[in-house]
Amino acid sequence: MTPNGKVYLIGAGPGDPDLMTLRAVRMLGDADVVVYDRLVSPEILAMAPKSADMVPVGKAPKCHTVPQDQINEILAERALEGQIVARLKGGDPMIFGRGSEEAAYLQARGINVEYAPGISAAQGMAAATGVPLTHRGLATGVRYVTGHLAADKTLKLNWESLADIDTTLVVYMGASSIAEIALRLMSAGLPANLPVLAVSNVTTPRETRLLSHLGQIGVDAQTLALRTPVLFVIGRVVSLYQQAALNQMPPLPAAIAGE
Amino acid sequence: MTPNGKVYLIGAGPGDPDLMTLRAVRMLGDADVVVYDRLVSPEILAMAPKSADMVPVGKAPKCHTVPQDQINEILAERALEGQIVARLKGGDPMIFGRGSEEAAYLQARGINVEYAPGISAAQGMAAATGVPLTHRGLATGVRYVTGHLAADKTLKLNWESLADIDTTLVVYMGASSIAEIALRLMSAGLPANLPVLAVSNVTTPRETRLLSHLGQIGVDAQTLALRTPVLFVIGRVVSLYQQAALNQMPPLPAAIAGE
Repeated sequence: MTPNGKVYLIGAGPGDPDLMTLRAVRMLGDADVVVYDRLVSPEILAMAPKSADMVPVGKAPKCHTVPQDQINEILAERALEGQIVARLKGGDPMIFGRGSEEAAYLQARGINVEYAPGISAAQGMAAATGVPLTHRGLATGVRYVTGHLAADKTLKLNWESLADIDTTLVVYMGASSIAEIALRLMSAGLPANLPVLAVSNVTTPRETRLLSHLGQIGVDAQTLALRTPVLFVIGRVVSLYQQAALNQMPPLPAAIAGE
Repeated sequence: MTPNGKVYLIGAGPGDPDLMTLRAVRMLGDADVVVYDRLVSPEILAMAPKSADMVPVGKAPKCHTVPQDQINEILAERALEGQIVARLKGGDPMIFGRGSEEAAYLQARGINVEYAPGISAAQGMAAATGVPLTHRGLATGVRYVTGHLAADKTLKLNWESLADIDTTLVVYMGASSIAEIALRLMSAGLPANLPVLAVSNVTTPRETRLLSHLGQIGVDAQTLALRTPVLFVIGRVVSLYQQAALNQMPPLPAAIAGE
């Protein structure tokens, strides 16, 4: 519609600005307006042009500051005015990011959309802790699910399918549902001693970690009251945590708890 | 052991240098020697310092140019000589990258290891095609598996667990096994008309795409003889392909085939 207006759907990665892609940094630097989620770290917001309008749109757990349809409208309105809109999301916009919903809305209105993928929190966890997502003999694949509750307050997950001992399971947005998730996974056959690593605010200066196991994580997560966002990594790869972290930067944080 | 020698385990991402992280670019730029896999694109290799030794170590499918234990030795030897070693891998070193195996070998010898995560090929696919990895109503999660055959020439996959219609399934290294994978998934309950997107050399100038479905992908992949590396995306999110690509950069390549 307009010659210049467009929307960049940008993955900000897990938190550390150093983990943004070259494309994401360039797109953010070109922005007239930055529409950002709560999960984007302050360190990354500081990289936006000083001249850019900064528009926060949520989303805290259970508290969508700005409803999705209003976010869509804000993006479209700004782009149709000819502005370059940076839509900045934690992680990757195409993994639990609703990037494709926003893109569909915008494209239906003739607005050009371009993507910058982002390092997912799970990948940030692997780089920060040394715990891999796959490893010969421990995990032949990896799976990302969300612990976010559906509108009817239930978890819409296929427990039989999820209880695969050969797959690393990564739970996003599971801070309030991890106790139920762990119980259901054990009911479906996963062992209570399967190790679990919880990481809060991964790759940021506020990162904390909790090493536990499936039979204990529900209690541990409640006791420790990890600050969101929290990522849970469930699987045999977590058994590599102690040795993987041995020689590694950054140093182990003080907040490790668990076994 | 040495004050300066260390190994950077670097994810080069899917191919486009623009999708490397700031950290990956900086680590590559500091390298005295670059030890790289076949899947790293020429565009990215060109970003290494002109002074760096360039050491190719494979790995073509079914043809590990340099065995893993020799790769480990090369990395350790160079680091113990005091060099900064960039170990450059396609995608992310912690997802099907054996990064954690190399790290364990090096750390056991007192060698410092640091990581730069990389955008996975699946994420590169999403950014390039507009097909998301999760989408409300179509996929509640995403799963990465490898179609690489085990030493006994069989696929070690849990088909019942994989046949989850609500999860996007991404198959890495499946060019020679996709026909069997599709058959097994259908036997386990996935519908023959489930859409499949195959993308070869994603995010590079050599990218080609094939849109098919589960009942047809085995034949299509053989007929088209897609050049490796090929990624297969299986699931309802692929139904968004046509509309997602509508207004998007880069333009659709000429090589699209299928329905």
